[in-house]
This record gives sequence, structure tokens and C-alpha cells, in this order.
Amino acid sequence: MKVYLDNNATTMVDPEVFEAMKPFLTDNYGNPNSLHSFGSATHPALRKALDELYVGINAKDSDDIIVTSCATESNNWVIKGIYFDKIARGDKKRIITTAVEHPAITATCHFLKDLGVELTVLDVNDEGVITPQQLRDAMGDDVALVSVMYANNETGMIFPIKELAKIAHEYGVPFHTDAVQAVGKIKIDVQDLDVDFMSFSAHKFHGPKGVGALYIKDSQELSSLLHGGEHMGGRRSGTLDVAGIVGMATALTLANKYLEFENSHVKSLRDKLEDAILKIPEVTVVGKREHRVPNTILASIKGVEGEAMLWDLNQAGIAASTGSACASEALESNPIMEAIGVDKDLAHTALRLSLSRFTTDEEIEYAIDEINKAAKRLRAISSTYAYTPAGHISGL
Amino acid sequence: MKVYLDNNATTMVDPEVFEAMKPFLTDNYGNPNSLHSFGSATHPALRKALDELYVGINAKDSDDIIVTSCATESNNWVIKGIYFDKIARGDKKRIITTAVEHPAITATCHFLKDLGVELTVLDVNDEGVITPQQLRDAMGDDVALVSVMYANNETGMIFPIKELAKIAHEYGVPFHTDAVQAVGKIKIDVQDLDVDFMSFSAHKFHGPKGVGALYIKDSQELSSLLHGGEHMGGRRSGTLDVAGIVGMATALTLANKYLEFENSHVKSLRDKLEDAILKIPEVTVVGKREHRVPNTILASIKGVEGEAMLWDLNQAGIAASTGSACASEALESNPIMEAIGVDKDLAHTALRLSLSRFTTDEEIEYAIDEINKAAKRLRAISSTYAYTPAGHISGL
Repeated sequence: MKVYLDNNATTMVDPEVFEAMKPFLTDNYGNPNSLHSFGSATHPALRKALDELYVGINAKDSDDIIVTSCATESNNWVIKGIYFDKIARGDKKRIITTAVEHPAITATCHFLKDLGVELTVLDVNDEGVITPQQLRDAMGDDVALVSVMYANNETGMIFPIKELAKIAHEYGVPFHTDAVQAVGKIKIDVQDLDVDFMSFSAHKFHGPKGVGALYIKDSQELSSLLHGGEHMGGRRSGTLDVAGIVGMATALTLANKYLEFENSHVKSLRDKLEDAILKIPEVTVVGKREHRVPNTILASIKGVEGEAMLWDLNQAGIAASTGSACASEALESNPIMEAIGVDKDLAHTALRLSLSRFTTDEEIEYAIDEINKAAKRLRAISSTYAYTPAGHISGL
Repeated sequence: MKVYLDNNATTMVDPEVFEAMKPFLTDNYGNPNSLHSFGSATHPALRKALDELYVGINAKDSDDIIVTSCATESNNWVIKGIYFDKIARGDKKRIITTAVEHPAITATCHFLKDLGVELTVLDVNDEGVITPQQLRDAMGDDVALVSVMYANNETGMIFPIKELAKIAHEYGVPFHTDAVQAVGKIKIDVQDLDVDFMSFSAHKFHGPKGVGALYIKDSQELSSLLHGGEHMGGRRSGTLDVAGIVGMATALTLANKYLEFENSHVKSLRDKLEDAILKIPEVTVVGKREHRVPNTILASIKGVEGEAMLWDLNQAGIAASTGSACASEALESNPIMEAIGVDKDLAHTALRLSLSRFTTDEEIEYAIDEINKAAKRLRAISSTYAYTPAGHISGL
């Protein structure tokens, strides 16, 4: 049996999405910017796709949704655009972010540190989030941008974005959220959130890889990351990837259609899996369920090295992760576990399981059995588990 | 009849390319960075694709070929990377480029002008190219980068890249070429050219839109444009677009397979079309044939507004262009025509025709008839053509 429980890393392309993309990878290949029928043949689908993106996140006509190649590009764009506009060419200097942002945010900020960017990195609490008060305490006249993720990629914890954006705005500071792990899992309403910028990526909600977007409230100024031709109103140059744009829009529409299902059925499967894992002695799961997106579990099975668990599960045909796929080629401890302050040994025991609307009850039953088997096997041969005082638990 | 003669704007995806991409848009959807079988299932195809890219441009194992989302990204990356490495963080200040580069180069340079970047823009001669001596005269100790396109998108004129790179290197300056219009049309050998950086884009050689690359000689240092996770050796972050990478590699392999065909058969069709157009009185074509890529014609039909010609041709099912698709939504005079010094009236008469290996003899016959018809009709109703002294030509 093959069971894919790594949907926070990437998702299966919905067959309906693939069908929608197909014409633009075959017969309908024109460049939308061309002044002839091959170009204009792409326009109805492009217009429909852009409409779907606006509806999908409840953007206003006066807002911009600019298609990018991925959320990493969107995140780099916001940070570097703000750097050029408000720091290199302005009188601001500070960017506020959190200890658990995606590397696309943190690495970009660090890259700019010797060029006048000061960084305030807010620590997270034991649930892996920051509080509005923490942000309020950190604000000041020198702040150019606040960037806080909407939902964490590893824990699934949802941040209080609406409240955080409001605080940034009290200081006249733009607010960005990396919503990669939120879109498709919870309802997104940019007008209600009142964020200035929001990044998302199609392949996290059953769309294709290689396409994402940046939402820009009221089409406000932000220096481009990709300069060049007059594509996307001159905001993001490069020939439009029509297939990708149509794929992302179709995926977003489908994700919203299945949102209720995600938050009832998928959530119930997640809860069933989580309940079963929590029956294993000395297991912790990070973050309260009701504060998380409905598909994610970040568990720690004491004494069981995350990579060893992945190996056993992979042998059984189950795909899981020890954390972000963006860095998972290296055998490192889970950075979120470290950020929330668990000890280093425990941070090596992270197991992330992330479901999707394609996950079945049968797959969850199978995964429960295999996780139990693997935990038992790995604890039996673990040198560290036997030696930890709390490890003297029999009956596992 | 539908005839696509706008292959410099974008090309049809080769059906073989689509077939190669398909598994990665359907069943084989894993994230290559994931530590499980869904991730590793993508590795053989990715490895093969990267090999094909190296072979396709004759790169060495010690070089880097980093996949990007398009040549616009590659071009922005080089210019901004050099800006951060050698200007903002170094003691250089000048970038040398030409008057006919793609906007992805020129707009990026202009964006950086108030941040310490000085720009030397070399004028082109009446064939639309620069000479090695021009570059030599412009060099100096303050130069951070020389960036010259390989083949012009509008004229198809090939620049003396090997000689130009040699001159830059005499001054210890890195050399970049935007090879978007060269790859797939002429043989590319980065070792022979000895360039430091080279940009290219899949959709210009029958690959998909939304994927391109930057070649980096000897994997030399260049600050990233997209910071984040550890993808592509940490040089370009963002989840790998497996379908796009496989598509680009397949397209490059096919393009090289058809290179001889392109330079014999496609060239002969281009020459046939060009000969026929040149039989129309008061027509000029920019650049000597032997100095051009084999598929391109940039013609000027005196008294015939380029957009009017496009309209007539489009009515007949023929796709052509007045110049770059990157700016063609605006009715402007052709910037290359202006750069080579033709008068403004003539610059409005540009007609670009660009063929591909899918162009047939029958299509060219049809296009010749329709271009003749359109020139006759439009000159008959032209207010400017009747009034120009040279316009008193009867029998057209």
C-alpha cells in the first residue's frame, strides 16, 4: 500500500487541474502578449484564472494578484522590494519576523543584514506561535515591514494574522504573511485579514509546481524583483506561464470547494491518526488541535530518531517527513522543535504527518499500524531510549 | 489556414516534450527534496534532465546550470547578484551593455542606477550589433560586468560573444550573455564561448513556459536572487518544478537533434520568404543573412504601419509581430529599428517573421501571398506612403 502523508511538502496535482492545464501545454501555446489570434486565444482562460484567484482569496478589484514562480519568489520579492523602497532608498531599517518563518524569509533577511537591514526575530511560545503583545512590544518608528507566516509548515499552528496586521498598521507599517500552508486548508479572506502582502504557492493545494503568487493590497508600490517587459502590469516580468496560471487558479477554486470537507472529513482523519499516536507512551504533539490547520501533526516519539522512523515508514510505503522538505536532505534536528524550546534529543525525534483531501480512512488505519510497529521496533533497538529515566516504560 | 510565424515570441511545445512532462503533472508528484519513495521517484528523471542540460550546452561537470523560472529571472539574477557582490559590497560600479538588450537587462540596470550602478550602453551599428573594438574602448577598472545578448530577439543578428568575452576577461571582468534567442537555433558551446554566465528559456525552443536556466561557469560565486531552502545547491531556492525541468531538458535535446535541420531546411524556408518580401519595392531587411540565426526576418515595408500589417495577416490566420512580445501590447515604434538609426516613420513599419522546425513550405507559400496582398492593400490606403517622394512606384 502506498500512503502519502507529506502534503505539506507538496501535493498530488488534482486530475481536474491537469486537464485544465493541458490545452496550454499543447495546442493553445501562444504568448498572451502577442497581437494575433494565437496570443488572444489564451486570453479567455487567463481572464477566468485571474478572476478565480481574486475570488479565491476575496481580493478587491483594486488589489493586485501577481503570479510568480513560487512562494519563495513571492517572499524574496516582498523582503527585497521593501529593502529597496524603504531601507536602501528610505529612512527605515528594521524588519520584524518570527523564529519559525520559512527559510525564504529568514535567509533573505540575513542576506541583507550587512546592507543596513536590522532584524527583530520574535521567539515563539511552547505552541510555536507569537502573541500580538510580543509584536506590539517590538514595534517602533524604524520598522519597514512585519512578516509573519499564516500557518506553520511543520506544526500547522495558525498565527493571529488579523490582530498582528492591525498592530503593524497602527504604526503605519506594511504587513506581509507567508500563507503557503494556509491556502487550501482554511478560509482565506484578505479583506478581513487586512494584510498588505500575502504569498502562496499552487503545489501546496493540488496545483502544479513552479507557480505561486503575491497578493498586493490596493496595488500598493513595491519595487519589482523581476524587472523587464510589461507583463503583469509591469510588476513581474517574464512570459506568462499560461498553463501554470490556469492550473493554480483551478486548484484554488477546487480547494475552496473542498474546504468544508477539509475541515470536517480530513480533520477527522487527522484527529484519528493523532489520537492513535498519542496512545503511544511518551509522545507529544506540538500545538493545540483547534489552533492548527486541519491536516497537520508534528509529533515527537521519545527515543525514536525521526529519520529512522521515516525509513521504516518508507519501507511500508508511507511518505512522511521530519520537518520541512526545503532542508530535509540534511539530517538535522527539527528547527521548530528547537524554537519552541524542547531539548536537542527530542528535536531529533520529530515526525510530521500531513494529510490531504485524497487521504482515505483505509490509509490512516494502515499508517496507525505501521507507526505503532515502527515505534516499537525502533525503541527496542534505541541506545538513547533505554538510558533515559523516563524510558523505562514497559508494555510498548 | 493557420500559420505561426512568431516563434521568437514563444514556440509550440513539442508533443514529445509534453509526453515527457506528463508523469510529473500526474502520478509522479513527489517533492525531490523529500526523504521517501515519492520524492526519490523523481530523481532518475531529474538526474537525466540535468545531464541533458549539461550536454546540450557543453558545460563541464564543475560548472553550474541552475534552473530558474525564465530567462527574465536569470537576467535579473546576474545583474542584481553582481550588484550585491561587486558594487554594493565591492568597489566596482559600472555595467556595460548594449542598446538592443532585452528589457530584462536594461530595466534591471536602470532600477539600480541611483544605488551606485553606472551604465555604459554601447550603440549598435546599422546591422544592429556592436564590435569587439567598441567594448575594448569602453572597458576600465571600474567595470563589474559586461552583458551582451547572443542573438537579438528582433533582428536575429548574432553578436561576436566569444571575442567580447575574451576582452572582458582581459580586464578580469565577468561576461554574461542572454542566449534566449540563440539556444535551439545555433550550436551552443559554453566552453568554446568561455562566458561566465548564460541565460536561456525553454519556451523559446519548444519547451514549456515558466522554466529557464542560468549557466554559471566553474560554479563561481554569485549572490542568489531567490534565497531560502537548500534547493539547487542553495543557489536558487523554491521547490523544484520537476515537470518544467524535464520539459526543458527534453526540449533542448530535441532542439540539438534538429539543429542541422534548422540550419538547412528552416533556413531555406526563411530565405525563400525573405527573397519574396525583398521583391516588394522599398523593403529593407535588417542585418546580413549569414550573420543571423536561421529563423528570423525583421523587415520594414515603407509606408505600411506594422500593426496594420499584423492585422491583415492575422485576418488571414498568420501570426507575426512588430517586434518583441514583451512590450507589444503598446503601439510603439520598433526599438531596434530606432537603435540602428532608421527614421521614426520607418521604425513604425517593422514586421518580424520567425519560423520554427514545424513551419512548412506550404505555410511559407501562403504567407508570401498574404504579405504581398496586405502590402498592396495597405499602401493603397496609406496617407504617408503616397506622400513620400520615393513612394511613387507603380505596379505594386
